[in-house]
Amino acid sequence: MPFEITYEIDSESSGQLIDAIRTEQTIEFPLRLAPQWIQDEVVGKVLRVDDISEKRKSVTISYDERVVGEELPQLLNLLWGNISLFPKVLITAIKLPDSFLTSLKGPRFGVAGLRRKLGVKDRPFVMTALKPMGLSPSELATMASTLVEGGIDIIKDDHNFANQPWALWRERVEIISSAIATANRTFNRSAIYAPSLNRPTEELFESARFAKDYGAGGLLVLPGICGLDTMRAIADDDSIGLPILSHPALLGSLVMNPTHGVSHHLTFATLLRLAGADFTIFPHHGGRFSFSKEECGAVVHHCSSSLGAISSISPALAGGMTVARVPEIVQEFGQDITLLIGGALHDGDLLNNTKTFVESVKSSSAN
Amino acid sequence: MPFEITYEIDSESSGQLIDAIRTEQTIEFPLRLAPQWIQDEVVGKVLRVDDISEKRKSVTISYDERVVGEELPQLLNLLWGNISLFPKVLITAIKLPDSFLTSLKGPRFGVAGLRRKLGVKDRPFVMTALKPMGLSPSELATMASTLVEGGIDIIKDDHNFANQPWALWRERVEIISSAIATANRTFNRSAIYAPSLNRPTEELFESARFAKDYGAGGLLVLPGICGLDTMRAIADDDSIGLPILSHPALLGSLVMNPTHGVSHHLTFATLLRLAGADFTIFPHHGGRFSFSKEECGAVVHHCSSSLGAISSISPALAGGMTVARVPEIVQEFGQDITLLIGGALHDGDLLNNTKTFVESVKSSSAN
Repeated sequence: MPFEITYEIDSESSGQLIDAIRTEQTIEFPLRLAPQWIQDEVVGKVLRVDDISEKRKSVTISYDERVVGEELPQLLNLLWGNISLFPKVLITAIKLPDSFLTSLKGPRFGVAGLRRKLGVKDRPFVMTALKPMGLSPSELATMASTLVEGGIDIIKDDHNFANQPWALWRERVEIISSAIATANRTFNRSAIYAPSLNRPTEELFESARFAKDYGAGGLLVLPGICGLDTMRAIADDDSIGLPILSHPALLGSLVMNPTHGVSHHLTFATLLRLAGADFTIFPHHGGRFSFSKEECGAVVHHCSSSLGAISSISPALAGGMTVARVPEIVQEFGQDITLLIGGALHDGDLLNNTKTFVESVKSSSAN
Repeated sequence: MPFEITYEIDSESSGQLIDAIRTEQTIEFPLRLAPQWIQDEVVGKVLRVDDISEKRKSVTISYDERVVGEELPQLLNLLWGNISLFPKVLITAIKLPDSFLTSLKGPRFGVAGLRRKLGVKDRPFVMTALKPMGLSPSELATMASTLVEGGIDIIKDDHNFANQPWALWRERVEIISSAIATANRTFNRSAIYAPSLNRPTEELFESARFAKDYGAGGLLVLPGICGLDTMRAIADDDSIGLPILSHPALLGSLVMNPTHGVSHHLTFATLLRLAGADFTIFPHHGGRFSFSKEECGAVVHHCSSSLGAISSISPALAGGMTVARVPEIVQEFGQDITLLIGGALHDGDLLNNTKTFVESVKSSSAN
């Protein structure tokens, strides 16, 4: 069974471009100079060409499964490697062979596993972020305790917390993890802390284990920076074994051009599920960012669409959300989503705002 | 000394967008709710705003050096993390503090080190790729021997060679390394082989050491897939210690939208130098890809522009080059470049074409 990739391209250049794509993504070699069997078996084959509009066509090309084998980096290469350098090519759909899908473990938890781990039934997950940069570990720890008291399920670092002098990575993780553990006991809660794994390559895995050893219950991973396959390796590592929150930093490059890139649902759902994310954080429409309602809907849909035996994951709608929008979002997308509100909780009393947020999620889900 | 980043943005949204950028890239928090000292010290400060045209403005924002510290992943985050999700923002320049620059080792070889290692004086480096995918290790090894005989300095894998059944990674590296060593002795040459480090995360460093142990003289690294900081870590690893060829796979996403992304010279020169590349392979104008003459010129320029004590690197002009273009390219860019011709050498007799290519580089440089 082959890999099938669907491209949207300009109609005027389509004939030449289709040959360029199927060749560039495989043999990168003048077609006529390749041995006949390589032309027949290794180069991509055009399955379908359809008109989308006067200006754009949809083209589906199939690639022999041997072109990728079972490795995620080479899937990324086949999908978008050299043709990321072609103008006006947009990837709109992929179909993966069973041999590839079964070679990946996918999310360690997925929605069902997260529900068991976090003890959250019949409602969306409630997430927030520790911020702003500049606070000390003990200030962030105090904030975290308040967020636990208020009923948050997942408390993550702001993604750009690295090893800044205001809150060094190890010290911060140790102090906040400890504060959340204490608050969980005090308030009879089971909130988890997910520090940002915004670390140099040499320290990524060691830092993940450090976080686990000190009681962190999840990890915020930045696949646009560390690489999708690195996220996959962190998720797969049994010595880590924590839920993975994927952050969208840098991934905007793939989706912000309407005629060039990889569609929102592939970038923020399908690829992240293949790479082991349990949560996919992305900016919901109507906040500080510019995704459309349709783009966000497609991401949410593909978090639980059929993908071999790969688990469903929880879309974490973020990027300037407010408590006022909770009912609308829950009504639209149901209970397997995550509501992530950050800064807005700090406008006024944090504890009260947090309680209102959590209550709103609970009451919206009960409807 | 701060980090300075220059953005090109739309004039009509500029006031609001400037505040959004300097806040989003630091505290991700409502400005008015942050403690005053954090507003003053952590949030970015606007240094300059200039009109570029009626529609676009250039804005330079400075960021306290503590926001990044000494870590490349957090530089990427500051540079392009969340604002990759903002429409119509283009990064056009960066200025880095000495504290950051001195914390990075940069390229292990650089142009001067490559000249010593490869024994190439007073002319550009000559590079080619083993292709097409589908050939067996012994077929590729035979091709590699011919390329050594023809006088190529650096013979790399096609970047999408992974662990395909036609040529498994370890077997291929072992057989080709051995063939090139033999050909070097036979033809009194010192060509190096750079296998593609298109490997799963768990095997990246081990594969690099395997390649070195079996005699590979360089490594082709795909930073758009494995992550820039992973390339940096491979370059920094003394147990590897090989020249790094950076391949542009996936990096097109950063540069292919003229109003959104990170300028060509930053993506393909500055950032790669920070991340330890010795060669930066990119598609030269007039080939199969669409970079402009000016964009290519800027990349070449910034491969040797001042960047603290970070070495100059060799721009490898590629992507459908032909022997006929060698004189023009050498005349324009001088001797520290690398000419990379792949498929075109195979149109006719490979040995003769290779000799013609090498001779053309030598005679163009002698002029």
